[in-house]
Amino acid sequence: MEAIMIYMPAVLAIIGLIFMWVKRSWVMKQDAGDGKMKDISSHIYEGALAFLKAEYKLLTFFVIGASIALAAIAYFVPTTHYLIIVAFIFGAFFSALAGNMGMRIATQSNVRTTQAARTSLPKALNISFGGGTVMGLGVAGLAVLGLTGFFILFFNYFMGGEWTNTEQMTIVLETLAGFSLGAESIALFARVGGGIYTKAADVGADLVGKVEAGIPEDDPRNPATIADNVGDNVGDVAGMGADLFGSYVATVLAAMVLGNYIIEDMGGDITSSGFNGIGPILLPMAIAGAGVIISIIGTLLVRIKSNDAKEAEVQKALNIGNWFSIFLVAVASYFLVTWMLPKEAMTMGFFTGGEAGFEFKEIEAIRVFYATLVGIIVGGVISAVTEYYTGLGKKPVLGIVQNSSTGAATNIIAGLSTGMISTFYSILLFAIAIWASYAFAGFYGVALSASAMMATTAMQLAIDAFGPIADNAGGIAEMSELPPEVRERTDILDSVGNTTAATGKGFAIASAALTSLALFAAYVTFTGIDGINIFKAPVLAMLFVGGMVPVVFSALAMSSVGRAAMQMVREVRRQFKDIPGIMEGTGKPQYDKCVEISTQAALREMLLPGVITIGFPILIAFLPMLFGYEKVLIAEMLGGYMAGVTVSGVLWAIFQNNAGGAWDNAKKSFEAGVMINGEMTYKGSDAHKAAVTGDTVGDPFKDTSGPSMNILIKLTCLIGLVIAPILGGHTEGDIPHDSEATAVYENREEHSKEIKVEMSSENDKTVAHVEVITTKNGETKSEKNTFTGTEAEVKAKIEALK
Amino acid sequence: MEAIMIYMPAVLAIIGLIFMWVKRSWVMKQDAGDGKMKDISSHIYEGALAFLKAEYKLLTFFVIGASIALAAIAYFVPTTHYLIIVAFIFGAFFSALAGNMGMRIATQSNVRTTQAARTSLPKALNISFGGGTVMGLGVAGLAVLGLTGFFILFFNYFMGGEWTNTEQMTIVLETLAGFSLGAESIALFARVGGGIYTKAADVGADLVGKVEAGIPEDDPRNPATIADNVGDNVGDVAGMGADLFGSYVATVLAAMVLGNYIIEDMGGDITSSGFNGIGPILLPMAIAGAGVIISIIGTLLVRIKSNDAKEAEVQKALNIGNWFSIFLVAVASYFLVTWMLPKEAMTMGFFTGGEAGFEFKEIEAIRVFYATLVGIIVGGVISAVTEYYTGLGKKPVLGIVQNSSTGAATNIIAGLSTGMISTFYSILLFAIAIWASYAFAGFYGVALSASAMMATTAMQLAIDAFGPIADNAGGIAEMSELPPEVRERTDILDSVGNTTAATGKGFAIASAALTSLALFAAYVTFTGIDGINIFKAPVLAMLFVGGMVPVVFSALAMSSVGRAAMQMVREVRRQFKDIPGIMEGTGKPQYDKCVEISTQAALREMLLPGVITIGFPILIAFLPMLFGYEKVLIAEMLGGYMAGVTVSGVLWAIFQNNAGGAWDNAKKSFEAGVMINGEMTYKGSDAHKAAVTGDTVGDPFKDTSGPSMNILIKLTCLIGLVIAPILGGHTEGDIPHDSEATAVYENREEHSKEIKVEMSSENDKTVAHVEVITTKNGETKSEKNTFTGTEAEVKAKIEALK
Repeated sequence: MEAIMIYMPAVLAIIGLIFMWVKRSWVMKQDAGDGKMKDISSHIYEGALAFLKAEYKLLTFFVIGASIALAAIAYFVPTTHYLIIVAFIFGAFFSALAGNMGMRIATQSNVRTTQAARTSLPKALNISFGGGTVMGLGVAGLAVLGLTGFFILFFNYFMGGEWTNTEQMTIVLETLAGFSLGAESIALFARVGGGIYTKAADVGADLVGKVEAGIPEDDPRNPATIADNVGDNVGDVAGMGADLFGSYVATVLAAMVLGNYIIEDMGGDITSSGFNGIGPILLPMAIAGAGVIISIIGTLLVRIKSNDAKEAEVQKALNIGNWFSIFLVAVASYFLVTWMLPKEAMTMGFFTGGEAGFEFKEIEAIRVFYATLVGIIVGGVISAVTEYYTGLGKKPVLGIVQNSSTGAATNIIAGLSTGMISTFYSILLFAIAIWASYAFAGFYGVALSASAMMATTAMQLAIDAFGPIADNAGGIAEMSELPPEVRERTDILDSVGNTTAATGKGFAIASAALTSLALFAAYVTFTGIDGINIFKAPVLAMLFVGGMVPVVFSALAMSSVGRAAMQMVREVRRQFKDIPGIMEGTGKPQYDKCVEISTQAALREMLLPGVITIGFPILIAFLPMLFGYEKVLIAEMLGGYMAGVTVSGVLWAIFQNNAGGAWDNAKKSFEAGVMINGEMTYKGSDAHKAAVTGDTVGDPFKDTSGPSMNILIKLTCLIGLVIAPILGGHTEGDIPHDSEATAVYENREEHSKEIKVEMSSENDKTVAHVEVITTKNGETKSEKNTFTGTEAEVKAKIEALK
Repeated sequence: MEAIMIYMPAVLAIIGLIFMWVKRSWVMKQDAGDGKMKDISSHIYEGALAFLKAEYKLLTFFVIGASIALAAIAYFVPTTHYLIIVAFIFGAFFSALAGNMGMRIATQSNVRTTQAARTSLPKALNISFGGGTVMGLGVAGLAVLGLTGFFILFFNYFMGGEWTNTEQMTIVLETLAGFSLGAESIALFARVGGGIYTKAADVGADLVGKVEAGIPEDDPRNPATIADNVGDNVGDVAGMGADLFGSYVATVLAAMVLGNYIIEDMGGDITSSGFNGIGPILLPMAIAGAGVIISIIGTLLVRIKSNDAKEAEVQKALNIGNWFSIFLVAVASYFLVTWMLPKEAMTMGFFTGGEAGFEFKEIEAIRVFYATLVGIIVGGVISAVTEYYTGLGKKPVLGIVQNSSTGAATNIIAGLSTGMISTFYSILLFAIAIWASYAFAGFYGVALSASAMMATTAMQLAIDAFGPIADNAGGIAEMSELPPEVRERTDILDSVGNTTAATGKGFAIASAALTSLALFAAYVTFTGIDGINIFKAPVLAMLFVGGMVPVVFSALAMSSVGRAAMQMVREVRRQFKDIPGIMEGTGKPQYDKCVEISTQAALREMLLPGVITIGFPILIAFLPMLFGYEKVLIAEMLGGYMAGVTVSGVLWAIFQNNAGGAWDNAKKSFEAGVMINGEMTYKGSDAHKAAVTGDTVGDPFKDTSGPSMNILIKLTCLIGLVIAPILGGHTEGDIPHDSEATAVYENREEHSKEIKVEMSSENDKTVAHVEVITTKNGETKSEKNTFTGTEAEVKAKIEALK
């Protein structure tokens, strides 16, 4: 049983994918409605495909370019293997595949939800949530399958499927990092491009359609309306999917890397504990695999019975499924942790900064379980905090509503303050999560707390993707002029979807932040540096630069939306002028032209943010080399940069997402009417107009720049991880285990030099056998010397060698 | 000559203060105009005094409370002396005095500028700039006098006026830190309170006066109009003055602390180099003293001749004075550095993180001069970058103007993006400044680069305070219905003042950032920790918390403005209703009621931000102690917090100041008319209205929360510095100098334990004389042991002691 645990996660992932396929077939078998409904839906479907076509064309070039760069790294760095390129390409491909599947099912479920809503609310929920489930299981299943599959492959290729030593496992995991890098790179394009796409289409369609031509929103005569609806799927479905796909893979990978260091800390061989001697490495994969099955169980619990159910019942049904699956993950974690980790207490190196660098503590397996609990609880609480700051009827949103009565300026100030103040509890929770999970089980604990939190990704994504499907369903009902009760039913689903969208964003940030921390820890261990000391001026300087990048990235994303929207406006104007009969409904608008423009603009506009994301860490790694900086210092500088990006990125993500979400719901509050200064105020009032202004400012915040922060911080840390072998010397064995007879003097500034000293006293004299091992460009030279004399003399000679 | 250099800065400061007094008398002798002008001016003057009265009343309680807290620290920490309380009180008093003097002269110069502008532009410039000069010299003179005076006092009190050792000098400097803490605490209230005050009065006066009562801006019938004008002085004059007073003192102090560590690195005694053996400590004071005199020379160069001069000539006159004084500081720095620093190359400890902790490099004095050049150049370039992003007619502001044509939302998005993108060059410049000045001369170089930049503070402040004086002068001209050419002349000065206000903010941020870095370095040396390692999870957690605080602080400041403005609105409404004849001009409005409300609201609203600023570092220092955390780890955690606050604070300061400045000038652009889509657009257009919305959002950004960031980061680092002796063990002599015969094993985790080992070999045996020195609550216990045996045995025994 124990030996085959390596295959279990892959098997569970395949079960998840089979269930997904069954669910997909069930959704596709549902009635897709008639004439107009089908027509609108197929336009959205075609538009989404047009986006994917254009995106993949461009991304192919990127993947080729990045592969060449990786080949160069593999050529110059002996510990980086060419197989990293294969892993990278498959990571990119799987991420794209997951996005593709999600988009397809979302654009097929929407019209079927509308059709179901004509007769039954429970069935409409089943279909829309079923579409979300397909998306969620596709993402999670592919993530676990890809990661596990490549691990098995590399474990067999590099180590012959048997434990050898931690150095070789490091090569396995470094090569596996390519898969994660590929996934996250595609996520960058999907999230940022998707964010620019959806807001460019949204603003462009509104400006020309509603304002200039005077036709209603979602009118099929507007050439940009399909792009707008496609955009919802591109941003909220595919973008979120790629984001979580990347987080899932990166989290598990980081935990595996840190698991390998536990084995190293325990002496380099724990085969006596079973599981092929790689229990701590398999554990995160096992939890991820279990999470897929648990999510399936969770989705089966999401059911309502009454056709007259209201928001509260629907929300309750989702909550039951969600909380039950989170509870099951905690239970599964308990059994997996206590079963798979060594029975004897594990030795873990806790960094102290003292002379030895590390303090070794005995950690019981149960403490690792506590760390997973920290992740599960913090993930839940952060979602709740997000819901509080962005939820309808809650104090912050009501405050923005009140401030709308005195104009747009006070509405904006209130929204900005809300976003800013919302960082307080979220960041304190992060700080506690880092602190507590580290106190329980070191950085392995941090990584596993992230893994446990991410285990329910399939369920989270199902809940999250259900929102835009219901939203689209409502749009289709409106456009097809179906009876009002249909719209009422989809509105119930849509309203719940808005809440889940906000909490989903909270989940995405929390997971990205914890993932980055785990990657950060993996980076430090990969490079073999003894921490990142910000009291070194160059490291501090890079902390500043890292802090700046998310801010500049956000600025670029926001102004991109403006430029892309203007381009869309010009195209729509041209079509209105050039296509005869378009306004009468006889001429067919060229939807794909708008889709193409939105796609091209999105991909072009995201180039500069992409260059910054990828370019800065590479510059920081290679530029100082030209100036002769020591590799260890450069590794710390890059670490400082990563920390700066993570801290600042998390802050700006929370700020922008919550400000945007709060503005959105402040505007929505006017639909049901709000009490301002003792007077009921509705849509169309001046206060509502002010709220619309706030919502427009919030749009790029919450749908473009805010969510992009997740990818920025993860990708930054992943690039660092891939560069790590160039900067580090993990093969030198950093942590001295045998300290009684041999003292290892290690000059950290010249990391490639290792001096081993063995001292003894003979006839009043001190004798020292000294071995100097120099590692340069992967070649190791050893020089041995024996010094004799008084102790002071010998010490001086050894000193000189350093 | 050399021995009396300790008195020179004080003498130069007194010369500066005498010149200030002469200048003040000259300004006061100028014609203050007639009837209405005098009336309005005296209302503003009285209002300002009313503010000061209320402020000082409240601050007295704060100073008493803080003094008690300091007394508690002095009681429990043996290395903290009670005299720190005296220094603290005087620091607070001097800061308040400088603000008081500045406000008085500014509120007296404005009407005299108006009167002069009736006949002559050159004379109007002379008076308004003369008022600014008085302010600048008052701040700089008091800062240098107070700091030098207390240094002389403590040097004589603790060391008898003669060099003894670095430990005693550390006590001198720790006590002196009280002066800086006092100054910065008052600055917190002045800057934040002033910022809330000015915007509350501004918004309140506009909402009731202009909108409800329909009377023009600055109408004397509006009870809040005086509060509004007082606010300009409170925020732009007193707030900026207190800010720079605090920076000036803190920078010089930090450089002195680091100078003391140079002496320690050089063996603890450099009396052979002259200057009483404290050359590196005196140097920053000498540069500051020289800066006062140089600023006087600079101000004398600010002259225009023609009565028909335009903005360009006025700007040129200011630039000549500014650049010449900066040039003179560079020259003076060269001579002072090469004269006062030891002739032989100095030994400086550069942190490496290796076993020794420090690498010692020989640094020539000239390299310290290069570091000062870095500060001078970066200060200048950052001002230029600020001017680019906020200047009229520059691309960013023109971009916001264009985006105003499509409504308030696009204007807001463009303004936010501008503020965000403006962090790019500024932060890169900081990074370069840290890197370069450190590379030249370690953290002493960083501190001296800040000192050199701050040396022209008097000149900078003169240029900066001249703006609001000219602004007020224009308002008085308008209210007194003087001929249009008077307003035209003051408008020229006001327009130049707007530009200098923006660059002044850039200077204030740059100085605050470099000051914080120098304080950060002083903190690390005070605590004696070997750097701040963010790979320790609790330190990383505190980096996150530190990053969050400036964001939450900004949010609180912004929402405070909203609440305070609402209170003002209610009071004005009450006066309009209750005071008979107020609208006809026969009833006298109760100006001081509004002033009182604005003051009380400002001081009350800034309580929570103040509590956060002061409370967080104290919590981080003391809470983990209850959980038994090691002091050294706590010291690193607090250091991580300080770094987080500094990085995030600098980012948010630049973002908010530049966004606010850009919105302001985008709105101002409409006054002269702007070309939008090929059409000239003016005030009153829809685009202008959108720009007004942006400006209103920007108001609290640039005048309340943005500038407060400076104080937040400086005060955080100063509190850390005052807490440092509690956490650290600097008296234990951290850097082992004598390593040949005695090896100092220092267990950093238990910092209070020091183990000295002397090993020798006798008759095949190794003999070790071991002394364990334990420091606890200031008491030192020593225990001596002698171990004999094989080397391995002896080493194991020593190991066990650790």
